[in-house]
Amino acid sequence: MSQFNSLSVTELNELHQTLQEKYNAFKGQGLKLDMSRGKPSSQQLDLSNGMLDVLTSEDSQKAADGTDVRNYGGLDGLPETKQFFAEILEVRPEEIIIGGNSSLNMMHDTIARALFHGVPGSEKPWSALPKVKFLCPSPGYDRHFAICELFNIEMIIVDVTEEGPDMDLVEKLVKEDEAIKGIWCVPKYSNPEGITYSDEVVDRLAKMETKAIDFRIFWDDAYTIHHLTDTPDQLKNILSTCKEVGTEDRVFIFTSTSKVTFAGSGIGVMAASETNIKYTQKLLSFQTIGPDKINQLRHLKFFKNQENLAEHMRKHAELIKPKFDIVLNTLEAELAGSGIASWKKPNGGYFISFNTLEGCAKKVVSMAKEAGVTLTGAGATFPYGKDPEDRNIRIAPTFPSLEELQKAVDVFCLCVKIASIEKLIAEQ
Amino acid sequence: MSQFNSLSVTELNELHQTLQEKYNAFKGQGLKLDMSRGKPSSQQLDLSNGMLDVLTSEDSQKAADGTDVRNYGGLDGLPETKQFFAEILEVRPEEIIIGGNSSLNMMHDTIARALFHGVPGSEKPWSALPKVKFLCPSPGYDRHFAICELFNIEMIIVDVTEEGPDMDLVEKLVKEDEAIKGIWCVPKYSNPEGITYSDEVVDRLAKMETKAIDFRIFWDDAYTIHHLTDTPDQLKNILSTCKEVGTEDRVFIFTSTSKVTFAGSGIGVMAASETNIKYTQKLLSFQTIGPDKINQLRHLKFFKNQENLAEHMRKHAELIKPKFDIVLNTLEAELAGSGIASWKKPNGGYFISFNTLEGCAKKVVSMAKEAGVTLTGAGATFPYGKDPEDRNIRIAPTFPSLEELQKAVDVFCLCVKIASIEKLIAEQ
Repeated sequence: MSQFNSLSVTELNELHQTLQEKYNAFKGQGLKLDMSRGKPSSQQLDLSNGMLDVLTSEDSQKAADGTDVRNYGGLDGLPETKQFFAEILEVRPEEIIIGGNSSLNMMHDTIARALFHGVPGSEKPWSALPKVKFLCPSPGYDRHFAICELFNIEMIIVDVTEEGPDMDLVEKLVKEDEAIKGIWCVPKYSNPEGITYSDEVVDRLAKMETKAIDFRIFWDDAYTIHHLTDTPDQLKNILSTCKEVGTEDRVFIFTSTSKVTFAGSGIGVMAASETNIKYTQKLLSFQTIGPDKINQLRHLKFFKNQENLAEHMRKHAELIKPKFDIVLNTLEAELAGSGIASWKKPNGGYFISFNTLEGCAKKVVSMAKEAGVTLTGAGATFPYGKDPEDRNIRIAPTFPSLEELQKAVDVFCLCVKIASIEKLIAEQ
Repeated sequence: MSQFNSLSVTELNELHQTLQEKYNAFKGQGLKLDMSRGKPSSQQLDLSNGMLDVLTSEDSQKAADGTDVRNYGGLDGLPETKQFFAEILEVRPEEIIIGGNSSLNMMHDTIARALFHGVPGSEKPWSALPKVKFLCPSPGYDRHFAICELFNIEMIIVDVTEEGPDMDLVEKLVKEDEAIKGIWCVPKYSNPEGITYSDEVVDRLAKMETKAIDFRIFWDDAYTIHHLTDTPDQLKNILSTCKEVGTEDRVFIFTSTSKVTFAGSGIGVMAASETNIKYTQKLLSFQTIGPDKINQLRHLKFFKNQENLAEHMRKHAELIKPKFDIVLNTLEAELAGSGIASWKKPNGGYFISFNTLEGCAKKVVSMAKEAGVTLTGAGATFPYGKDPEDRNIRIAPTFPSLEELQKAVDVFCLCVKIASIEKLIAEQ
């Protein structure tokens, strides 16, 4: 495909007319397609239906230590649940807290607790400080940024490179500014970039000098086992890296089975140093009697071991990979070499991060919406919902069927082309 | 039985020796009995085992509106779950938020949100005020008081009468003091007193003039359907009472199925005016994607309607009532007319509230502990864990077997007598 910016205004206008006709044809179809959220498809959910059968009234409702999972207790999870997730996150069971159905809720609460009470090492609760700031590698996860906004935590954008956040900038900022108390990281198959942090980035995050003595990395390892290929990305263990350099209290790790078993009925987990865990357990004991242990036992009986879990994730990949391929192949066919777009090819996770020409993302999203294709709001991947260059669009291909997805991405490519042409014409 | 205080020192000493011998005999038995927490027995939990079978892989996993309960969504609950709990709490579905497995968690979060953001009508977030105070009808629920302590909310003790909190004092305090932002209430079969608020108390709570414009009643209706008799206590509907007098934003209502189905795997609920609910929904959307919808559907399929729920609660009562009877009959046989103790006879709920002579509760609890009988810590039913008269002991009879319970209450009565005699001798 020829570069769009090498075309004359006349050629652009002609092309615009052809594309607009195609677009109008789509609009006439009354489509209702959704590529907005990282939702599993029903075929993916079917993979876990067996979990609905593993704990009936005929089965023992006892945990390994004899605990009746139907009764109160177990503030931070059953021992075997901790063991299971410790293996996934490559930490020790003592470094685990099992939560309810939402790791997002655990992140929110961890920040709320830090604001009210501080974290181990804090001189004061964070809310007692004149200002609290977080570094926000962007594009990133809108719900992370929303938590900061909710609590009036100032967000500072940091670019995301192929290797993770721009560490030169991160190191500079955290060394200088005591108000910077944290950084949001989705370190593996990141949302939405799909990149995995390099060993060097992990090392530098662990080692870096922070002006705040109670700085925390919020390490949302949501996609840790969500591979799309047989040669998964390798993420260096942040907790053990921190231990090596004596900063083990620096990191809060989170993950969940929301995209492993049932979204909304999975298990949320956090991991951290024993000091952080004990501190959190104590505050947690005021919040709740404990998470749902029956659901924990269901997960354990369904998976039994890490091998079965890995096999289960391969089945997810079998369903998801063709969807990523449809999007990536169509983008390639329609937009490669056009000079109006760029995108990432992730090895895992739930998203494809797409960049338009500067100033076109909002236009593309609203055009797609008008034609019945819902995308994540433009800007959502940046703090305060504002993409400074209005370029980034997060594509979530997992939920629609293959057929729907093909149509949705066709519409999307059309919208990208039309919006780009309009920008190029306006600039002539 | 003769009044203990009519006995001479010699008689008291003789009695003390006899009782002490019996006590020592119990101590030699190596008992391990627990009357400390309001935990359902395993027989009670068995009543809900059918809930483990109603939603298998063979069943539809769709809600009435077609929602796939296995996927994300449903921030505040499925429509039919709201409907079901609206019927229980006698409110409208629009006045309901369905939570996770813990109503305590919802109460904690409601206070945390009020501190961070205020409630509808607040001029400022509560945490921006120099001081926040709560009225704490006592004896009351230790976990309510613990939440206040966690957030540095000053607690003011208010006596509990047969009709509810001492309303003369409540009205006086809330009218005078702007810092008083809330009151904890367990209005039905209260924890631990077992009393139900009279219509007049409900009316006065709804009507009373509060200096704080954003005063809130935390109405923990935990035992709303937990009757022990066929002639249950009737609690006047606080929300509709508030509506009648124009104070509908004054109340947050909470309940759960923790003691209906599975403790730890039940459903927590809050109810309030639509203004409060919409405000809460908005803040909630930052905290979580939503509660476990599969567990909601399980509950709905298990109960189907209010009649089945009522029948289910009758089966609970059949298991619980004999346990209350053992405790009450033994207290009657051993301590009635002794002048050293008083207690309540509740028509529902989970507790029997017991008062020793002033200054004896701690002693009784520690003696019982030494003999292998665990009771709720003395003082736990008061703010800061301090019973100003050291009298109140909460007896939780539901968890032990009938046999264990008889032994436990025998030990308990012995401890009460011995501690009382020691007090009476010391006072001679």
